[in-house]
Amino acid sequence: MVLTIDTPALAGLLGRVGVERFLRELADRTEADFAKWPTFEKSARLAAHSNVGVLELMPTSNEEWFSFKLVNGHPGNPAAGLLTVTAIGMLADVATGYPRLISEMTVLTALRTAATSAMAARRLASPGAKTMALIGTGAQSEYQALAFRACLGINSIRYFDTDAAAMAKFARNLAASGLELTACSSVAAAVAGADIITTATAAKRTQVVLADELVAAGVHINAIGGDCPGKTELDPKLLARARIFVEYLPQTRIEGDIQSLGPEAEATELWAVIAGRATGRTSRQDITIFDSVGFALEDYSALRYVYDKARELGIGRLLPLVPEPKDPKDLYGYVLGLGA
Amino acid sequence: MVLTIDTPALAGLLGRVGVERFLRELADRTEADFAKWPTFEKSARLAAHSNVGVLELMPTSNEEWFSFKLVNGHPGNPAAGLLTVTAIGMLADVATGYPRLISEMTVLTALRTAATSAMAARRLASPGAKTMALIGTGAQSEYQALAFRACLGINSIRYFDTDAAAMAKFARNLAASGLELTACSSVAAAVAGADIITTATAAKRTQVVLADELVAAGVHINAIGGDCPGKTELDPKLLARARIFVEYLPQTRIEGDIQSLGPEAEATELWAVIAGRATGRTSRQDITIFDSVGFALEDYSALRYVYDKARELGIGRLLPLVPEPKDPKDLYGYVLGLGA
Repeated sequence: MVLTIDTPALAGLLGRVGVERFLRELADRTEADFAKWPTFEKSARLAAHSNVGVLELMPTSNEEWFSFKLVNGHPGNPAAGLLTVTAIGMLADVATGYPRLISEMTVLTALRTAATSAMAARRLASPGAKTMALIGTGAQSEYQALAFRACLGINSIRYFDTDAAAMAKFARNLAASGLELTACSSVAAAVAGADIITTATAAKRTQVVLADELVAAGVHINAIGGDCPGKTELDPKLLARARIFVEYLPQTRIEGDIQSLGPEAEATELWAVIAGRATGRTSRQDITIFDSVGFALEDYSALRYVYDKARELGIGRLLPLVPEPKDPKDLYGYVLGLGA
Repeated sequence: MVLTIDTPALAGLLGRVGVERFLRELADRTEADFAKWPTFEKSARLAAHSNVGVLELMPTSNEEWFSFKLVNGHPGNPAAGLLTVTAIGMLADVATGYPRLISEMTVLTALRTAATSAMAARRLASPGAKTMALIGTGAQSEYQALAFRACLGINSIRYFDTDAAAMAKFARNLAASGLELTACSSVAAAVAGADIITTATAAKRTQVVLADELVAAGVHINAIGGDCPGKTELDPKLLARARIFVEYLPQTRIEGDIQSLGPEAEATELWAVIAGRATGRTSRQDITIFDSVGFALEDYSALRYVYDKARELGIGRLLPLVPEPKDPKDLYGYVLGLGA
């Protein structure tokens, strides 16, 4: 039997656990898995490109579990009332090879991205950070805000988006959250005085969402919108004076904001900081950047977390997606019996 | 919504369509897709090996559909009452990137293997073939026998297995089929006078299941058991005097029976014969071999066939595995609404 978590089931799980507890526990799981980074098989995404988008498989595995995500990116989808990105993930047991979990991963990817952002900021931001500027109030924004409160105690959010309706939506969704929300009229206004800046914009081109001169010493930047070739958000001058941290350098050189620094760009892999093998922030004056593009290990952590939680809470549907013949050589007779 | 076909649903579909019609229609689909071979994206399997087995992703795509299969191979599983191989497949729409189908593929892989075998034999066997020798009566055997009747009119099966219980199971399952079944006491007895020889044994080592001296001129050999490194069935001397056909040469050189000929082994890709770009059988004296290891395109054809048939017959379950928010930027509000 394979446990299947569709979107309503994940929403139900989220309701039972609570969004902030989910994000905090997932950040802890992700951090623990990053600490064991060298024990995971890592590979580039396997991508099939068409002239309207891309479909990718993102696998990873360790001695216990094999996970992968099927994910698409289709910029023209919203014009047809569809999502730009959707995803489905699976877990299989390495010892037997049997599939164990199929989960929706569209919502789960937003959650794991926020958990990873907060997990990185917990390591890299200046101690005592209280205010976050949020540039871009799209589908990721509420989860980012809640993850940073859950993991770092950020209580004040200064937000801006070029889409006024998206700003109103953000404010409405978090009105009852207890977060102190300040709508701003520009990027400059939003980042003024912020300890952390999250850029989560969707425009699919090379652009400067965040200009160098707007960023004061000591700030941590959580850059999640620059995540594929030809899509960046940060001023190259800002990159030049910051300490840059990434998930998996070979991938981020192609997909991240550091693509604007060329194919030889250098950055520190976050796992090394977590494992105590590299230095994170060195002083209160450092500008730190987490140039996040999303990595398969984060999906692994999220799928493992959901699998455990769903079984604990009895959520999801067990589907007979694997035959269970008494005699493994008698698949034919087994199938005949099922069909009759 | 994603159409989900679990094993009972596939068994129900098979019951409604009829096994032989299913195999014949699938062979036709597979042949039509092989004829368009150059239009598909092809890649090696993406494999994660452990010391007890392997987990693989097998993707392919064309302009319309992206398909992949998650499949494992764990030789020690039967000792624990589990299947050696299980699989799950998916289809996604290339135009939107949306997933459309999740299907059990353990049974479906047996069906697509049989359909592919028969499709190849229809091209390669001597016209008028009436008798098939079946060496190995495991999980694949009944589907092989029925596919060869459905596609080539083979009415007589001479069978042998080292496991007497497996032979009895085969005879029992096909007792009412109308096939003329002849139990044989050895490989030599089974192949005597056969027009086609199918080798479908499971022993995971390099061995000679079929010795050169047993094979008469004019025979077609459907070799499906030699399908991974270190697992072969055919006498190298037999390979040397036969015309050999394969699915995808770079893969078969590693996984197929031709691995015993070394990394430079030559063979004709079956699609080229189907597309009229290469010659199949040249005379009634040729020994032809289809050295089959299974290829992602066969899974594509099978998933597309099942998707169409299941929708036509109203079989399967539509699962909400993709969110459908009214405002794509309001994933948070949408999820909150579902959980409440």
